[in-house]
Order: sequence, then structure tokens, then C-alpha cells
Amino acid sequence: MKIIDFRVRPPLKGFLDMVMYSNGERRDRFTRQLGLEPAPSAVERSMPLLLQEMQAVEVVHGVITGRTSDFFGSVSNEDVAAIVQEYPGRFSAIAAIDPANRKAAIAQIDAALAQGFVGVTIEPGAYPVPIYADDRKLYPIYAHLEDRNVPVVIMTGGNAGPDLSYSNPIQLDRVAGDFPNLRIAVSHGNWPWVSEIIHVAFRRSNVYVSPDMYLYNMPGMDDYLRAANGFLADRFIFATAYPLVPLKAYTEWFVKLPLKPENMQKCVYQNAANFLGIAP
Amino acid sequence: MKIIDFRVRPPLKGFLDMVMYSNGERRDRFTRQLGLEPAPSAVERSMPLLLQEMQAVEVVHGVITGRTSDFFGSVSNEDVAAIVQEYPGRFSAIAAIDPANRKAAIAQIDAALAQGFVGVTIEPGAYPVPIYADDRKLYPIYAHLEDRNVPVVIMTGGNAGPDLSYSNPIQLDRVAGDFPNLRIAVSHGNWPWVSEIIHVAFRRSNVYVSPDMYLYNMPGMDDYLRAANGFLADRFIFATAYPLVPLKAYTEWFVKLPLKPENMQKCVYQNAANFLGIAP
Amino acid sequence: MKIIDFRVRPPLKGFLDMVMYSNGERRDRFTRQLGLEPAPSAVERSMPLLLQEMQAVEVVHGVITGRTSDFFGSVSNEDVAAIVQEYPGRFSAIAAIDPANRKAAIAQIDAALAQGFVGVTIEPGAYPVPIYADDRKLYPIYAHLEDRNVPVVIMTGGNAGPDLSYSNPIQLDRVAGDFPNLRIAVSHGNWPWVSEIIHVAFRRSNVYVSPDMYLYNMPGMDDYLRAANGFLADRFIFATAYPLVPLKAYTEWFVKLPLKPENMQKCVYQNAANFLGIAP
Repeated sequence: MKIIDFRVRPPLKGFLDMVMYSNGERRDRFTRQLGLEPAPSAVERSMPLLLQEMQAVEVVHGVITGRTSDFFGSVSNEDVAAIVQEYPGRFSAIAAIDPANRKAAIAQIDAALAQGFVGVTIEPGAYPVPIYADDRKLYPIYAHLEDRNVPVVIMTGGNAGPDLSYSNPIQLDRVAGDFPNLRIAVSHGNWPWVSEIIHVAFRRSNVYVSPDMYLYNMPGMDDYLRAANGFLADRFIFATAYPLVPLKAYTEWFVKLPLKPENMQKCVYQNAANFLGIAP
Repeated sequence: MKIIDFRVRPPLKGFLDMVMYSNGERRDRFTRQLGLEPAPSAVERSMPLLLQEMQAVEVVHGVITGRTSDFFGSVSNEDVAAIVQEYPGRFSAIAAIDPANRKAAIAQIDAALAQGFVGVTIEPGAYPVPIYADDRKLYPIYAHLEDRNVPVVIMTGGNAGPDLSYSNPIQLDRVAGDFPNLRIAVSHGNWPWVSEIIHVAFRRSNVYVSPDMYLYNMPGMDDYLRAANGFLADRFIFATAYPLVPLKAYTEWFVKLPLKPENMQKCVYQNAANFLGIAP
Repeated sequence: MKIIDFRVRPPLKGFLDMVMYSNGERRDRFTRQLGLEPAPSAVERSMPLLLQEMQAVEVVHGVITGRTSDFFGSVSNEDVAAIVQEYPGRFSAIAAIDPANRKAAIAQIDAALAQGFVGVTIEPGAYPVPIYADDRKLYPIYAHLEDRNVPVVIMTGGNAGPDLSYSNPIQLDRVAGDFPNLRIAVSHGNWPWVSEIIHVAFRRSNVYVSPDMYLYNMPGMDDYLRAANGFLADRFIFATAYPLVPLKAYTEWFVKLPLKPENMQKCVYQNAANFLGIAP
């Protein structure tokens, strides 16, 4: 079964400066807290090892995402583009923006699209000045993305911002309602607000849900899966959030979850491909 | 087993102008998203068919509710009263109000009660100008209802308003605490905030919970049922929210849920009768 | 298996003036609403009976907590200290404060510590003037506790304040993030916001979770237990909240829950001992 990993951060270029690589001890503690063992490729920061791990579980394609953040560390679109180019066909690129200036952000988006980026990410609570997903600063940007039919990956789950309020899906729901033709995927699945994001996705057919590692034996896991086996079968997107969890072990665990075979297929491949408009 | 359906919208008069009948395609998509098939009576807008469907599952009585809304469409109290009169013994009527002017709203209530209405509904987020359940505009109205011992059905679940914040039970909890002698039933069960509304009902003995269709294989289903089998056995109220789900199939599914027989009996009949002070 | 009960209110001194003893009818209704029978010791307000009940289930030690509240009733630190002294080795004491004046509160803390108190409690929503856990009034107090390495028990679950907003863990999360070296145990486990407090505890290693009676067949029970069997094994703390539930029956029920034996051991004894720095 061919698999797309919707959130993977390879041990290359700017990613190596992010906390998840620069502070390996912190990352491994996080991984172990989930009950998993760190990936050899993460510990050794080895791209060849990661490619082996991907191959071992048929992850044929990974989505890599730029980032603008003080806390987590930033990764430039240039670095992301360079990685995609270096490993042809292996990765798709999502562009980061700096929301501080709307004109500059829109220029960033247009430049990225011209370069082959397949989408844009917004990480409201992770920006140097944290904001909520419905911040006015972001509305011209959402409008631009909707008008150009560019999908957006919004990271509003887990440690999405300075505190728990940044993962509450209320603001995300407003955005999804105000831009009904904007395709939105929520990374980290707005965890821990599981019932709430499932409601949002039930109400808003433009919302895709990608809970990645926060599915792993965490509260809400059964609810995410019930939705993925029901109304969300076409909008649930598999991801690992590697290197925070080991890509190989997490994928092996995921594919054995009790989803109907046709839904599993969609969740690990087709939904991501449809969302991004790619066919890897 | 005789059953009262606490939320039913027959295909008659003003209901036919509501989105749920005027846009059948939208309604059927909603029904199918839940994993159910639209009711023949809904598709054909046939009252004789609905009466057959009710009879087939021993739904001997239905509660029908007026509405003041731009988005969903409005149904006048006059229409509701006419339906009740046309089908004697078959339905009880809940009056809508317009909260914009408190004196007019109170006059509406008193007129409705004089006409035989058995309760009043408040739908804060669905009004032309959406408000929260604890809006000051509503407090004189709640006070009037409490003073006259009139039960109120508050709709603060599901798509209760412009966004997810309108279903959060925090405001509802304040109302229940501020009017401890006001009997309140929450329609759509404040879904998706399931743990939270169960807490509110645990704390406030004047709160009845009626999750209707949002129980159907949705997150929180098991928690609603556990409560209905425990402390909430006397305050859990069955409803279908027909025509959004097929009354017959939904009722057949519900009566097989793992509630103790004595609790099932209460949930599908006695609790609604007690709440409204009726004996159909 | 030796057990520490992290929240017990013996029928002595100031506790007898609290609502939970002064209004036995209300307390027993609460207990029965949970599906339990009131403890004989609670009904008879008998300390010898309570000691027997503790012994019957190997509760070798109880944590008793002062309180500053109009609604629940207050218990002075003097009363708490006197009880600890009267039953040597049997109880540890947690000091209440009055947050209205920060200098007086800090003086209260220092006096209590000098007297042998092992921690301090903050009950933001229960104070005569309810506040949230991240109220500015409390920040100098948290700073003082962090600087002196004093653990704090924050009560932000269940009926924590005038309404449901007082148990929402957003404010608690801010406090835990702003004082990373302050050991915090949340009493009543921020119920009903179960997924949310589990996220907070996942993110903040200084947060201990003690859901006490709100674990009892309530929504979220399975999630609390899954966490206690996983990443929270060293930070989940057993408590009864006696006399709101019968200490003996609740403890008998709890020790049969499906926790791994080594985790059960930690949850009922070692975690509380570590948190408070005691070895009873």
C-alpha cells in the first residue's frame, strides 16, 4: 500500500537548526513520553537512514513544510525547495510565510507557487508574535489563497502556541466558515479538542483533519478513527510528524488500525493527494 | 413501547419554507453524512407517510417547535398551533420568540401559553442577530419563564450559531445557575461539548439533555449513554430532529442502545412528558 | 498495598461547618447521584468510624487541606494543623490562603511552612471573589511558592467556581508554563475538560493530575486511566474527596481498575509522596 506522509521533517539544511534536531535530548524525551523509541535516522541525523525507513513501510512521498517561528526554529522556503529538488519525486513542498506584513506574505506565496510549492502553511500560535487562526492579519492571506485555489495547512493542534487556547478550534471554525472554498488541513488535528474539531469537519466540508502523532494512544483516538471510518473518510490525512515519532514504527502501527481497507487506503494516500492536487 | 419524539418538524406549512425542506439536496447530504438514508416522507414532503413512519415505531407523540431565524428559516407560532390543532393529540407545541424586544417577547409567550403551547424555545445563535445563551436580552425572558413555571428548550448544540463558540455550554451553565427553578432542555445536547454538558447536567438538576441525531455514532455517544444510564436517567430526552434524520430508522436504532429497560422507557417517553407537564 | 488519600476532609473542627457536613442531605444526594452510598462515618460524623474505614482499605495517610470560601465554607489552617497534631503520622496538611492581599497571603504561607505544612492550596473559583487560575493577584504567590520549592494544589475541576469556565484548563496551562519549576497538582482533575488537562500534563512536566471522585464512571474516565498507564504514570495521584464519596467503597473500586500493578502502586502512594516530599 503506497503511503504519503503529510508531515515529515528530514534531517537536512534548516531542519537541523530546529529544536527537534538541535535538542535531540528534548525530542527523544517527547518520543518516549508517547511510548515510542526514537528513530535511528533521527538520532543519527541521517538522510540515507530516513530514506530506508520510508521505503521499509512504503512511504513513497513526504510533505515538507517551511516554518517561521522563534520557539520551534525557522526553516526557509529556499531550504525546503532545495530538498525537494535534491530528491526528485520524493517530496512535495509547503511554503511558510511571515504574517507580519500582508503584502510581503502574499509576495512570498506567489514566489513559492511559481517555484512549484503545492500549498501554504499558517502556524498562528507559533509565529514570533503568536496570533489566533482568525486574526485579522491572516484574512487577506486566506482570501488570496482561496482566490488562487491554493490549499492551506493550518497548525493549530498540540503545542500550537503559548497555551491551550491556541489549539481550541473556535477560531479555525470561523476561518473555515468565512472561506468556504479554501481547502484547509489542520495539522496535529487540533488535538486535544477532538470532539470539537470533528464537529467543525462535520459542518465544514472544506476542512481536512490530520492528527498525526497525537493519535497515538491519546485521548480522542477512538473518535478520530470513528470519524475516519465514517463521514471523514475522504478528509482524514495520515502523517507522522517525524522526527517527533519514528516514521517506520508509527506507520506500521497506523496501518493496522481498525479502518475499513478502502478508508485506510484513502487516509494514507488519496486524501493527501487530492488535498494538495498531486499524484506522486 | 410508547415514544415521544422531542424534536420533529413535519412537512407542513412554514416548515416547508425552512432550509431542511426547501433545500432537500442539502438535507439529504447531511443525512447521508451521518450514514443514514433520507426518510421517504421527507423526500416526498408527505405527512401521511410521516404518520405511517411514526406509527411503525410507536412514536405516539411529537414535539414541534417554532423558530425565529434567517439562516435556518422561520416557522411562526401560528403555523405550529395550526398543525397541533389539525392532528389532535398527536403533537405538542413549543413557542418561538423574537428576543429583540423583551416586552414583545413576553407578550408572545403569554399569548402562546393562552393558546395551549406547553413550552418556549430559545435559539440564541440562530436568531437574525446571533447572541449567546447568557445574553442580557434573554435574562428578563428567562425570569418570566421561571416565574410562570414554563419549561424552556434551548438550542445550543450542533450548528447552533455562526461558529463553534455558540455550542460551548459555559453560557448555558450560567443561565441554569442563575435560574435554578427554570426547567431547561438542551436540544442537540450541546454537541460536540459532551463531557462539558454532562458536567453541567450533573451540577444543575434543572438541566435536561436531548442530544437527538448528534448521538448517532458521533464522538461522545458513549458518554451520553453512560450518563443516561446513571445520574441522568430522569433527565435524558430522546428526539430525532426529523427530517434531518429518518424518524423510523433512527428510532429503531435508538431503542436497541444498551440502556437498562427502565431507563430506556424514561428516556423515550416519561422524561419528555415530565419536562413538559404533558401526558399524551 | 499502602495508600495515600490525597484529598480527605475528616469530620472534625472547621470541616463540620462546611456544606459537605453541615448539609448532609445535599452531600448524600451528590454521593448517590454518582451511584454510591454515603459512608457511615460521614453520616454519623464519626472520626473513629473514618479511621476504621481508612484502615480497612490500607489508606495509611490522608492529605487534608484548608479552605477560604464563602460558598463551600472555610477551614482555617489552625484547624488543619490541630487535626494533624491530634493524629500523629496519619495526616499531612496543606495550607489555605486568602488571595485578597498578596503580602498577607505570603505571610500565611511562611507561617504554615514553619508549622510543618507540606504544601499550599489555591482554589481560584471558590474564593469569596472568584478569580481564574491565572489571575494577576496569584502571580506573586506562585512566584513565592516556586522560589521556595513548595508544591501547590490547585482546585480547578468539578464545581470549581460559579460556572464551567472556571474548570477550563487554559488558565492553568498558562500558570504551569509561566512557573516551570512549580510543582502543581490539579484537584478534581480539571474535570470535565479531560482531553484538555491531559494535553496540559503532556506538555508541562510540572503538572500532576488528581481527578478523585470525578473519575467514577464519568466521561473521560478511560482517558484518565490511559494516561495513568502511560506518560502520566509518575504524575497521576489517587484521592477520594471524602466525604463526598465513601472512602472505603471508592478505594476498593479504584484499586481494581485496569492499571498495571507498578503504575497502580505509584498512583495510590508514591506519586503523592514524591509530589509533597513526604514519606509516611
